[in-house]
Amino acid sequence: MIYFDCDYSQGAHPKILERLTSTNLEQTPGYGCDPYCDQARALIRELCGAPAADVHFLVGGTQVNATFLNAALRGHQGVLSAAAGHIHCHETGAPEAGGHKVLALPTGPEGKLSAAQVEEQCAAHYQGSPPPEHMVQPKVVYISHPTENGALYSLAELEALRAVCGRWGLYLYVDGARLGYGLTAPGTDVDLPALARLCDGFTIGGTKCGALFGEALVITNPDAGQDFRYYIKQGGGMLAKGRLLGLQFLALLEDGLYFTICRQANALADRLAEACQEAGLPEYAPSATNQRFFLFTQEQMARLSDKYAFSLWESPPEGPAAYRLCTSWGTSPQDVEALAADIRALRPQ
Amino acid sequence: MIYFDCDYSQGAHPKILERLTSTNLEQTPGYGCDPYCDQARALIRELCGAPAADVHFLVGGTQVNATFLNAALRGHQGVLSAAAGHIHCHETGAPEAGGHKVLALPTGPEGKLSAAQVEEQCAAHYQGSPPPEHMVQPKVVYISHPTENGALYSLAELEALRAVCGRWGLYLYVDGARLGYGLTAPGTDVDLPALARLCDGFTIGGTKCGALFGEALVITNPDAGQDFRYYIKQGGGMLAKGRLLGLQFLALLEDGLYFTICRQANALADRLAEACQEAGLPEYAPSATNQRFFLFTQEQMARLSDKYAFSLWESPPEGPAAYRLCTSWGTSPQDVEALAADIRALRPQ
Amino acid sequence: MIYFDCDYSQGAHPKILERLTSTNLEQTPGYGCDPYCDQARALIRELCGAPAADVHFLVGGTQVNATFLNAALRGHQGVLSAAAGHIHCHETGAPEAGGHKVLALPTGPEGKLSAAQVEEQCAAHYQGSPPPEHMVQPKVVYISHPTENGALYSLAELEALRAVCGRWGLYLYVDGARLGYGLTAPGTDVDLPALARLCDGFTIGGTKCGALFGEALVITNPDAGQDFRYYIKQGGGMLAKGRLLGLQFLALLEDGLYFTICRQANALADRLAEACQEAGLPEYAPSATNQRFFLFTQEQMARLSDKYAFSLWESPPEGPAAYRLCTSWGTSPQDVEALAADIRALRPQ
Amino acid sequence: MIYFDCDYSQGAHPKILERLTSTNLEQTPGYGCDPYCDQARALIRELCGAPAADVHFLVGGTQVNATFLNAALRGHQGVLSAAAGHIHCHETGAPEAGGHKVLALPTGPEGKLSAAQVEEQCAAHYQGSPPPEHMVQPKVVYISHPTENGALYSLAELEALRAVCGRWGLYLYVDGARLGYGLTAPGTDVDLPALARLCDGFTIGGTKCGALFGEALVITNPDAGQDFRYYIKQGGGMLAKGRLLGLQFLALLEDGLYFTICRQANALADRLAEACQEAGLPEYAPSATNQRFFLFTQEQMARLSDKYAFSLWESPPEGPAAYRLCTSWGTSPQDVEALAADIRALRPQ
Repeated sequence: MIYFDCDYSQGAHPKILERLTSTNLEQTPGYGCDPYCDQARALIRELCGAPAADVHFLVGGTQVNATFLNAALRGHQGVLSAAAGHIHCHETGAPEAGGHKVLALPTGPEGKLSAAQVEEQCAAHYQGSPPPEHMVQPKVVYISHPTENGALYSLAELEALRAVCGRWGLYLYVDGARLGYGLTAPGTDVDLPALARLCDGFTIGGTKCGALFGEALVITNPDAGQDFRYYIKQGGGMLAKGRLLGLQFLALLEDGLYFTICRQANALADRLAEACQEAGLPEYAPSATNQRFFLFTQEQMARLSDKYAFSLWESPPEGPAAYRLCTSWGTSPQDVEALAADIRALRPQ
Repeated sequence: MIYFDCDYSQGAHPKILERLTSTNLEQTPGYGCDPYCDQARALIRELCGAPAADVHFLVGGTQVNATFLNAALRGHQGVLSAAAGHIHCHETGAPEAGGHKVLALPTGPEGKLSAAQVEEQCAAHYQGSPPPEHMVQPKVVYISHPTENGALYSLAELEALRAVCGRWGLYLYVDGARLGYGLTAPGTDVDLPALARLCDGFTIGGTKCGALFGEALVITNPDAGQDFRYYIKQGGGMLAKGRLLGLQFLALLEDGLYFTICRQANALADRLAEACQEAGLPEYAPSATNQRFFLFTQEQMARLSDKYAFSLWESPPEGPAAYRLCTSWGTSPQDVEALAADIRALRPQ
Repeated sequence: MIYFDCDYSQGAHPKILERLTSTNLEQTPGYGCDPYCDQARALIRELCGAPAADVHFLVGGTQVNATFLNAALRGHQGVLSAAAGHIHCHETGAPEAGGHKVLALPTGPEGKLSAAQVEEQCAAHYQGSPPPEHMVQPKVVYISHPTENGALYSLAELEALRAVCGRWGLYLYVDGARLGYGLTAPGTDVDLPALARLCDGFTIGGTKCGALFGEALVITNPDAGQDFRYYIKQGGGMLAKGRLLGLQFLALLEDGLYFTICRQANALADRLAEACQEAGLPEYAPSATNQRFFLFTQEQMARLSDKYAFSLWESPPEGPAAYRLCTSWGTSPQDVEALAADIRALRPQ
Repeated sequence: MIYFDCDYSQGAHPKILERLTSTNLEQTPGYGCDPYCDQARALIRELCGAPAADVHFLVGGTQVNATFLNAALRGHQGVLSAAAGHIHCHETGAPEAGGHKVLALPTGPEGKLSAAQVEEQCAAHYQGSPPPEHMVQPKVVYISHPTENGALYSLAELEALRAVCGRWGLYLYVDGARLGYGLTAPGTDVDLPALARLCDGFTIGGTKCGALFGEALVITNPDAGQDFRYYIKQGGGMLAKGRLLGLQFLALLEDGLYFTICRQANALADRLAEACQEAGLPEYAPSATNQRFFLFTQEQMARLSDKYAFSLWESPPEGPAAYRLCTSWGTSPQDVEALAADIRALRPQ
C-alpha cells in the first residue's frame, strides 16, 4: 500500500536524524534553554525580519494553538475561526477545555475568513442587542495558511484582516501547520516577513514539513504572549529535552531545506492534480499546495484503493465523494508517477 | 414609558412577597436544607408524577444551565444546541468556561432542534472521518421550551428527541426559563409529567414567571446529576438562605398560581398579536406564548416608541426590523388594550 | 430550638422587605442597570471616599469571590490565601474550577496572613529554583476581614500587605462577607475608606449582615476588574431583576442601618463570650465580632444542646471540641440572656 | 562542566536513535495507531501481567499527569498529593487549569503519603462539618515512585494505599517518571505486576530513563480512563507520528534495556553517595535511586562548582544547603569517579 492520505506518515528528513545522532551525548540545559534552541530562535527572527519577536518551540499543532489561545485570551474572550477551522473541528474542543469559545463563521470551500466577516462580527458584538457582556467577546482571529482545504490567503487579504483586527483590538493568529507548503506555492505573495509584520502570532509547522515533530511559534506582539513560558509548561508543552526541537528547526531552516522540500512536495502534488484534471475528476476545493481535493465515484475509488490510500474528506449521501491526495517531503516521485498514471486511466473512454 | 420589552421588569407576584414576609423571622437551616425547600421539592415531584426525581433550586437561568452541564458532561463532551439557543448566544460562554463546547446546529425561525439533526450529528461523530476522538463527543441535547423565539415542541417532537438520545446515549435537557407560558399555551400537548418522563433534566423557570428569582431543576436521570449539590456550591448557586427559593416555588405551585398567571400573560399576548395582525404587520416567528415577534418599519416604531418599550430582536441592513413584545404576570390589561389600539392605528389607511 | 449556629438562619431586616414590597410593581431595566442599583453604587462610592470605584452587586459569597478571581487572574496565576481561607476550604474548589490554584499558607488560630509570608512566597517564586514558569505565579492576596475565625486585621497590617502587594505586582482582595461586624468591632481602626485605599477589590457582605442575599463588590483598581460585567454574566451572577440587590444595599446603607445592626450583634456576642469566660471555658480563637469560638467538653455541650444549636468548629480525637456561637441582626436579646445564663451554669462548682 | 544536575541533559540511548533511523522512511498510520505502538502496548501488558490493561503513550510527564487527572476526575473532584508532589509544586497548576484542586498533605523528607493520611482526609470529608458538598471531593491519590526525593514505597505501603482507596472509592495513580530507577533499586519489592495489580493507573517514564521523550501510561481500571483518547487529543498529547513513542518503548523494553540502564545509574549514584558519606556530608533525604540529596556548605560547594553542576534543592536562610546529585543512562563512570574523588577531598582533615 502506498499512502497519499497525509503528510505525517513517515519519520523526518534524514538530515534531522543525523543532527540528533551527532549531538546525542552532549549535555545541555533542559526546557528549551539550550544553545540549539537559542540558535534556532535567532535564525527564525532573522528569516522573519523580526529581531524582537518571541520564538517558542512546542511539540504539536493542537498544543501550540491551545497554548497560544490560553495566553492571549482572558476568560470572557473567544476566537473567531472559519467553521472548517482545525481548532473548531478537529482538536476535541481544546480551546473550550481552556475556557474559550470558538466563534465559528461560515466560509466557502476554500475555508478562508474575510476581513468583512470579522468586521461584521465585532460590530454586532459591540453595537447590537443585548449588551456585549451577554456574549463572548471576540479577541483573536484564527486562520490557517494554507487553510484546511489547501487554499492560500493573498497578502492583500492578510492586510485587510490586520486592519480590521487593529480597528477592534483583536489579535491575528495564523496556524502554519503546513506553512512551508504555503510559502513555496507558485504565485503566493506571502512570506515570513509579511507574516511577522501582519500577525500577532503565527506558527511555522515542522511536523508536516519534514520534522519528526515540532511547531515554532513566533509571537510579535508581546501583549499576546505575556509570561508565555508558564503557559507552555502548564499546557504540557515544555519538552524536557527541548533541544530536540531547536535542533530540528536549525536543520530545516539553516540552509533553506524547509523550503526546498516543501516546494518539491507541491510540485509532486501538481502532478497528481494534473492527472486528476486529465481524468476529468471534478475539483472539490482549489489548492496550490501539497494537499489536493478531488471528487471520485465509488467505482473510480475502487480501482485505486488496492494500491493507494487517501483521506476521505467529505462523503455526501449520494454522488461522488471528496478525497484528499497528499504529498510530503518523503513522497517518492516514482510513486507519484505510478499514481498519476493510474488516475489518468480512470478517464472515461 | 410602559415596558413590553421583557418579562422580568417587575418584582414578584404579591403572594410571594407576603410569604417571604410572614416567615421572615423563622430560623431555618441554610443551603436549601429547610422545610420549605423540602415541601417545594415534594410538590414538584408530585406535579411531575416523578416520585424519585431530584429537585434543586438555583437562582438564575445561566447558572442552572451551566451547573447542569458541568455535572452531566465529562471534559471531552459537548452539548448540541440550536444555533439560536440561549447557551450558545447569550450566556457569555458559560458552558465553555466550564470546558464544554456547544455544538451549534442551524434551525428555522422557530429555533427548534429536530431528532433528525441529532441523529445526523451523532452518526457523523461516530462513523465519520477522522476518528471520533479528534472531535468533541456529543452528550447532551439542549432545547428550550418555549424556544427563544416563543415556539413550542409537540409531544411527538419531544418523544422523537428522547428516542434519538436513547439510541446514542445522550441526555435530553430542557431549559424551561419560560416553561409556565409553554405549559399553558393553547393547544399544547406537553405537560410536567411528559417532561419528567422524556427528559433527563429540565427546569421550571421562576424568574420570568412570577418569582423574584429562581429556577427549579428537576433531574430524573441520576446519572446526569450525580453529586449535584457539589456542583451547585462550586458554581456559586447555593443560596445561603435557600428557603427563599423553596418559599417562592411553594407560593407559585401549591395552588396553581404559576399556571394561572402564565395563562393570563399568554392571553394578553394574544391580544397584542391580534392587533399586530389587524395592522398588517408581518410575523417574524410564530409563537403562542407570552413573547410575540413582529416586523415594524422604522416609521411605525417611531409612532410607538414614545410611549412603549420593546426589544429589538433582529435588525437587517434594510427593511423592517423584528421586535419582541412581551407580557408577564405583572402586565396590566389596561396597558395591553392601550398598546393594542395604538398598534391597530398603524394600519395603512 | 434556638439557633446560634450561623448568621444566615433568618430572612432579612424588615426594612428590606418593606422596600421590596413598596417598589414591587415598578418597571425597571434588568441586569443591574436600574436606578436603585445606580443609587446604591453612588452611595457606596461616597461611603468609601472612592468616587471612581467600580461597584457591582452579586448574589452570594462563593460567587463574588470566584468572579473576582476569574477577572483578576490570567490562566497561569494563582491566589495566596490562609490555609483556613474560605476559598481554600469551603467553596468546593470554585477558584480551581475557574483554572486558578489557591496557594495556601499556614496561619495561627486567628487565620491571618502576614505581609512577611507574602514577601517570602513571592521571593521564592521569582528567585528560587526551578525557574518561575514551573510554578503558579502569585497574583492575588486573598484575606477575609473578619477572618473565618472572627479575627480582625489592624490598619497597620493591611498597610503592610498593601506594600508587599505593590512591591511584587499583586492585587489585594478582601472578602468582607461579615464586613459589617468587622467595621463595628470595638477598637478597630479599619473603615471603608481605608479598605478602598488599600485594596484592589473588596466586598461588603449583605447575606450575613441583614440582607436576604447579596454582596457588594468594590473594585478600586480597574486593571483587576476589566470587562467585569462579562464575568458576572458568565459566572451566573447577573441577576435578571438586579434591582433586588440595589434596593437591599440602599436600605442597609442609606442611614447606617448596616452598622447599627452589626454593632448590636457584636454586643450580643460579647455577652455570650463573657458568659463563657465566667464559666471558665477556654477560648479557641480570639474574636471581637459576631462569631465567638470556645471549647466545650462533651458533657458541657450535652447540657446545652437540647435548647440551643451551635456549629461544631473543630473536633480533636479527644478532649473538648471547639464550637462557634454566632449572633446576627435577628438574634433576640432575650435568647442571648437565656443562653448566657445557661452557659454560666456550666461553671464547675 | 560536567552535569549531575538532572537526568535529562542528553539525548537518548543510542539504540533508540538507531531504531528511529532504521524505520524512518516506512509509512505508518498516525496518532498511535501504528504497528510499533501496538507491539509496545502488547509488550507492556505482558511485562505487567495485565492482559486487559489500556496502554497509551504520551510525550511528557506534566502532560500525562494532567491528562489522566482530566479523564479520571469529574469537575467537583480533586487529587490527594504529598505537599512536595510534582503536580502540586512544579507543573504550573496543570491540574487546576483542568479544574481540579490538588489536596496537598504534609509529609516527611521522603515525600511519601501514607494510607492513614488518606483515610483521615476521606473521613474528614464525608463525616465532618460542613457537609461534604462545600468541599472538593477526594477521588484520586497521586503518588510518585520514586518520590521527588528519591524514596520508594514498599509493597506493603502500596497495598495499604490500595486498601484505603478501595474503601472510599478512590483511584490510586502512580507517577513513574523515574520508575526504572525505582524498580531496579536494591531491596525493592515493587515490580510492574505489583503496580498493575494495585494501581488504577501508573506511568512508565521514558524521558528520564533513556528515551528522547515519552511516558507510557498503563490504565488497569477502565472506569478511570473511559474515552481516554479524547483526552489525549484534547490535551495536545496525541503525537501525529505516534510511532516515535512506540518505537522508543519497544527499544527500551523488548530486551530489558530499560532495567539495565537504570540499574547502572543507581549503582553510579551509590558511588557518589558513598563519597558524600565518607566526606561526612549530612544526607538531606534518604534515597536508593539515581537521585541523591546531600547538604553542602557554601565553601564546599565552591570547591566543586567550577567543574560540576548540581541542582540546588533547598536553601535555608543559613547553614548548609541541600543539593541533588543525579545520574542517568548517559552518565560516564569516569565522570562519577572524578566527582567522587573530589567529594571525598571535602572531608575535614
